[in-house]
Amino acid sequence: MKIKIAGIGLTKFGELWDKSLLDLALEASIDAIKDSGINKSKIDAVFVGNMLTGKIAGQDHLGPVIASSLGLNAASFRIEGACASGGLAVHLAIQGILAGTYKNVLVVGAEKMTDASSNQITWALMGASSSKERKAGLTFPALYALMTQAHMQKYGTTRKQLAQVSVKNHYHASLNKKAQYPYEVTAEKVLNSSLISYPITLFDSSPITDGAGAVMLSAETDSKGIFITGSAVASDTIDLSERESLTELKATQIASKKAFEQAGVGIKDIKVCEVHDCFTIAEIMAMEDLGVCPAGAGGKFIEKGNTKLNGKCPINTSGGLKACGHPVGATGVKQIIEITEQLRKNAGQRQVKDANIGLTQNVGGTGATVVVHVLQN
Amino acid sequence: MKIKIAGIGLTKFGELWDKSLLDLALEASIDAIKDSGINKSKIDAVFVGNMLTGKIAGQDHLGPVIASSLGLNAASFRIEGACASGGLAVHLAIQGILAGTYKNVLVVGAEKMTDASSNQITWALMGASSSKERKAGLTFPALYALMTQAHMQKYGTTRKQLAQVSVKNHYHASLNKKAQYPYEVTAEKVLNSSLISYPITLFDSSPITDGAGAVMLSAETDSKGIFITGSAVASDTIDLSERESLTELKATQIASKKAFEQAGVGIKDIKVCEVHDCFTIAEIMAMEDLGVCPAGAGGKFIEKGNTKLNGKCPINTSGGLKACGHPVGATGVKQIIEITEQLRKNAGQRQVKDANIGLTQNVGGTGATVVVHVLQN
Repeated sequence: MKIKIAGIGLTKFGELWDKSLLDLALEASIDAIKDSGINKSKIDAVFVGNMLTGKIAGQDHLGPVIASSLGLNAASFRIEGACASGGLAVHLAIQGILAGTYKNVLVVGAEKMTDASSNQITWALMGASSSKERKAGLTFPALYALMTQAHMQKYGTTRKQLAQVSVKNHYHASLNKKAQYPYEVTAEKVLNSSLISYPITLFDSSPITDGAGAVMLSAETDSKGIFITGSAVASDTIDLSERESLTELKATQIASKKAFEQAGVGIKDIKVCEVHDCFTIAEIMAMEDLGVCPAGAGGKFIEKGNTKLNGKCPINTSGGLKACGHPVGATGVKQIIEITEQLRKNAGQRQVKDANIGLTQNVGGTGATVVVHVLQN
Repeated sequence: MKIKIAGIGLTKFGELWDKSLLDLALEASIDAIKDSGINKSKIDAVFVGNMLTGKIAGQDHLGPVIASSLGLNAASFRIEGACASGGLAVHLAIQGILAGTYKNVLVVGAEKMTDASSNQITWALMGASSSKERKAGLTFPALYALMTQAHMQKYGTTRKQLAQVSVKNHYHASLNKKAQYPYEVTAEKVLNSSLISYPITLFDSSPITDGAGAVMLSAETDSKGIFITGSAVASDTIDLSERESLTELKATQIASKKAFEQAGVGIKDIKVCEVHDCFTIAEIMAMEDLGVCPAGAGGKFIEKGNTKLNGKCPINTSGGLKACGHPVGATGVKQIIEITEQLRKNAGQRQVKDANIGLTQNVGGTGATVVVHVLQN
């Protein structure tokens, strides 16, 4: 598999009160189209990753909303898989290209979350979980708190180790102008911030964010550039309570195995990753499920600085969901954009030396959907 | 292009107070899987077409909700494009098969509409239109009323001719046990029913419906069976007010042209169609845009009985959206199922003689999305 990333575009992430969903989607799209040098008339499909806009703003049917606002004469689609919507949109756009149906495809991930009230956004986000667990009062911090507690109990992972995920990602974000929180925090600050659901604190959690990212994908593979060489999706039970284990995401294991096979590489070849750190435990589970470190060793691995810029395997150089921000439908696309910047050697102060192969891992809900992409130059 | 329709499953359409969205989706899916004879362990992807469940019942992330309830170990996706969600799900499932990524794919279109209040469902459905037209107070009956008036003015189409769409589709539904309204109506009844938005009456309009349809698609093309040989999507402006013409859907013209090219057939080869008659004018425009009759001739063409069972080109033998019902996310899948039944010579009293090639046309909003499929045996 070889799909060219011909162009990328990313808005600032944050509380963007003066911009609508459409403003954000168009800004990212126009930048990606411009970056690709592909004429608008040659774009034959638009895939939109979005979770919430129908629910919180009443606007569905975002495929033609965005395609027609861009003046494109293209087939268009909206893909939804909770917080994995962006990654799924990339995966399905790739299928359209591999099928030979589409040649130049724009993928836009976009979310405008700050227009909704807290109650409204909590209700809207809970659509990603099972009705059973929703009715039992288990919000996402509560679900991930269960996973955190299980991991602490089984492997001795400590709250201090978890806090290091946040500290590292804030450090990376401090080097990223697009990040929602471009500043450093201390482990003390993370540990002493408001408790959301024991042991998860405010600074263990990703924020509510507005933002959009877009990538132009192309069937053209003769020229030099950055290519997606692996793209795989796996699903698991929507109910966390029906899983055999609370300390791993099977869907990450399955999807990454497939994506590695497609790309013909292994985890040891990966020089930089963007993973789905919606809560600090999620990054530790991702490391273990991807094979960056053995199961249970994630806490110690991050404590040693291995996943920091200039470490063995830098993770979430963008700042991750925690500090770059988490506009849910955009996240999976933003991950691809960060790795593309790394492979292009365009990541400035965040540049990982010799980055030639990278990976993204995008999660929906508590792991009912996982999308993994491998990128190479 | 040759994608096998290995199995089909369809629930009763109607006001199904005792069934949930999941009940309906599972019933159709289990029937389709059984009908295909494909072992559950061989299903590698599930595509769900659904528009409203996130908004009216709070449940998004339907890919894994449905896949895991079926006990499938498969990648899963939810596709949304307003009332074209089902058709888009079929189209994208096909791309996954053509890409070589998936071999046996379950497509489920499902909608549970009667649990919502009238106000809630009106709000939810209006997400298919543009924010501008929504804010101007243009509901879907009002938007299609503008198209109807333009067609009447330009071509002299009469309300009596429009009523014939409803009369014919109710006649077809009277032969279909799965239909929401399996009874005949007279033109007088249509014309004298409550006025919704001039000249559209209640009986010019499709109803609020619960229901689900599922198809098993397969890469296996050696054996005999029914195959999808053309699948195309086109988009148009989300705003009706930005179109050059109110009396045609360009997206139908573009998508059908592409689908015909893929299948290597023309409209004259089509023996039976399912088209998107959300309002009576929509069926007349579909006939004209597909080339069943010339532009402007739709009213006379239907008046002569050409599109009735045993006519020149039978349209909506299921009863269409008007009388079989319109569970929005399910409609595009149900159309494929009806044509499959026809090509299998399994349509009972609704059987079109010598049906060997058929077509489906599924519309989102006022034509911002159109999906066309060609089926052959």
